[in-house]
Amino acid sequence: MSAVAFTLRVRYAETDAQGIVHHANYLVWFEEGRSELLRRAGCSYSNIEAAGFHVVVAEAEVRYRAPVRYEDDVTIETQLLNVRGRLLVFGYRVMNAAGALIAEGRTRHMVLDRELRPVALPTEIQALLIAWKEEA
Amino acid sequence: MSAVAFTLRVRYAETDAQGIVHHANYLVWFEEGRSELLRRAGCSYSNIEAAGFHVVVAEAEVRYRAPVRYEDDVTIETQLLNVRGRLLVFGYRVMNAAGALIAEGRTRHMVLDRELRPVALPTEIQALLIAWKEEA
Amino acid sequence: MSAVAFTLRVRYAETDAQGIVHHANYLVWFEEGRSELLRRAGCSYSNIEAAGFHVVVAEAEVRYRAPVRYEDDVTIETQLLNVRGRLLVFGYRVMNAAGALIAEGRTRHMVLDRELRPVALPTEIQALLIAWKEEA
Amino acid sequence: MSAVAFTLRVRYAETDAQGIVHHANYLVWFEEGRSELLRRAGCSYSNIEAAGFHVVVAEAEVRYRAPVRYEDDVTIETQLLNVRGRLLVFGYRVMNAAGALIAEGRTRHMVLDRELRPVALPTEIQALLIAWKEEA
Repeated sequence: MSAVAFTLRVRYAETDAQGIVHHANYLVWFEEGRSELLRRAGCSYSNIEAAGFHVVVAEAEVRYRAPVRYEDDVTIETQLLNVRGRLLVFGYRVMNAAGALIAEGRTRHMVLDRELRPVALPTEIQALLIAWKEEA
Repeated sequence: MSAVAFTLRVRYAETDAQGIVHHANYLVWFEEGRSELLRRAGCSYSNIEAAGFHVVVAEAEVRYRAPVRYEDDVTIETQLLNVRGRLLVFGYRVMNAAGALIAEGRTRHMVLDRELRPVALPTEIQALLIAWKEEA
Repeated sequence: MSAVAFTLRVRYAETDAQGIVHHANYLVWFEEGRSELLRRAGCSYSNIEAAGFHVVVAEAEVRYRAPVRYEDDVTIETQLLNVRGRLLVFGYRVMNAAGALIAEGRTRHMVLDRELRPVALPTEIQALLIAWKEEA
Repeated sequence: MSAVAFTLRVRYAETDAQGIVHHANYLVWFEEGRSELLRRAGCSYSNIEAAGFHVVVAEAEVRYRAPVRYEDDVTIETQLLNVRGRLLVFGYRVMNAAGALIAEGRTRHMVLDRELRPVALPTEIQALLIAWKEEA
């Protein structure tokens, strides 16, 4: 409902010998979707890291519906599905320029400290994310 | 049970600013696990493409258990879980040098022809894969 | 003089364990600089490939002046330095958000046909590029 | 003369829509050539970083002679051309399975401390590298 959208143009380096975008790049696009959402929610991932936290990927899943090619415009819509202490869940939809769904996915994340031990996000950051999620 | 194993050493370019391997690279490693399995089953993916077929990824999922770092040795074990006409399913386990599980995953694939239309694999290739799966 | 500029935001996946952008990514950014220039000159690289030509990289050089990091804004300025039959030469300057030069480089390219044999670009495409270069 | 060789098999993810290896990947292979050389010289890059140093790329150049494709075996030969205080220079030759030269290149590096300030390598590491270079 409260998806954050951003559009990118497919790079030549993102294609493979099948002539289409290599499937691993969708995880990179999802990651930039999260970056965009966090910036808009007021807590950019750069700031989260500067505060001493890593948000790592615990699970990722992607369903590929249709291929995209070099120079295609692609829109990534990202939603914050869940935020709870040490856990974040995001959902993604990828659309081509005609608005057709070309992929969708979901990632689950854990919050770690600098020594890569599980930890809760600081309450201020949690509050920003929860506010964002509820407003949306 | 019949997993095909191969070992790689983590490249510096595979790390990210968290100091660990970027999560998208596991899909690249899974892909090389499939390549290895197909070569051993007698139908390398190069040959499948030369015969006019693309095997594309329809779904991918990864569960990340523990990080790995630059210069770590990593073993990818790949299994062919299902093969049926237009559909292939592979499973993966990634282990570090100490034998600990660091990630696992699964990919589903569709077979397409040169025009990217769904099609069944030729019976000879299906036979090789089914023989491999049952022997294993 | 007639540089084409475009700006990108550094992706997390472009960083490495040094905490800065991995040096190979500058070649990817240069490539998107060429893409942008070709689109503005009226002969997008997609169209060049659709017409049956590949423009491959014969030489690349990069001088790295200063690091950039995740979420930094980076501007790539691309110039067409030379165009002659089978040869294209491009130059690049990469600037950070403060306008400081962070890298510069040059790539030389050869034109190949579908069988990867050297060939001259069609005269219409050459004319578009020469016009672009002289106007600039 | 004293080149360190290692062989890799081209990954599908390293190809692009031209059907050949994307040119940026050669910088990644060069980097692994350096890694291999440093390990054999007794000062792995992991150890150099653990000791508080970063070796960053200041210049890179590549000349591409012939394409390589998915599943090709590729050998990277790396030489340490120069080592002096804050400066390291490496040279590279890339060969296909038939022994033909497919690319060559050179990289210049600067040594930085954890705050990314230029610094000389510790004398023990310099000594190991100079010994390696002269023995070779």
